[in-house]
Amino acid sequence: MTTLNELAREHCRPLRGSEHLLDSAQADSLLTCLPDWHVSEAGLLQKNFRFASYAATLLFVNTVAGLAERENHHPDLVVGYGRVTVSYSTHDVGGLSRNDFTCAAKIEALLRI
Amino acid sequence: MTTLNELAREHCRPLRGSEHLLDSAQADSLLTCLPDWHVSEAGLLQKNFRFASYAATLLFVNTVAGLAERENHHPDLVVGYGRVTVSYSTHDVGGLSRNDFTCAAKIEALLRI
Repeated sequence: MTTLNELAREHCRPLRGSEHLLDSAQADSLLTCLPDWHVSEAGLLQKNFRFASYAATLLFVNTVAGLAERENHHPDLVVGYGRVTVSYSTHDVGGLSRNDFTCAAKIEALLRI
Repeated sequence: MTTLNELAREHCRPLRGSEHLLDSAQADSLLTCLPDWHVSEAGLLQKNFRFASYAATLLFVNTVAGLAERENHHPDLVVGYGRVTVSYSTHDVGGLSRNDFTCAAKIEALLRI
């Protein structure tokens, strides 16, 4: 069983091809260590975050963006006043890969600092 | 006829109540000075922007966010790699107000600097 901290310490690897596509059992197993994340109907690894101010919202956006650049794995972000929805998927495998869960775990780890 | 530069020099005002709701003729008239903006099916003033890099994407997000704080009028942003969709509407009037068009014009003016 992978823990949040173990997953957060991994790094994204260049993944290409359907052999890196996670099946739903593998995705469900990794989901158990990611609080309040879910797989959307469209197959995206997703979580809604709330913030007390716009400044805090943008700080989160920029933190996630910095992580995205470092890992070369970029989520979709829907940003409003005090709210951000983060969605990960891996275009090059055609669905969810371990990289998506690694980045989600890194966000959770960052929020605990 | 309002020009882009005239609209961009205005500032958002606190608007509340349906007397500030623009009808579709008023919205269409203001749209003519905003290149590639449109009113979506959901009634949002919207434009899709493309960028050559993630850094340029985030610079735009932060510029729009700074503008949003200064004008106290905050859009919804959908942010991906090299792309941002900006959507404005005015919750307190239940649709589009002049504030939405003012902020859109300010974004256009900023992009011309």
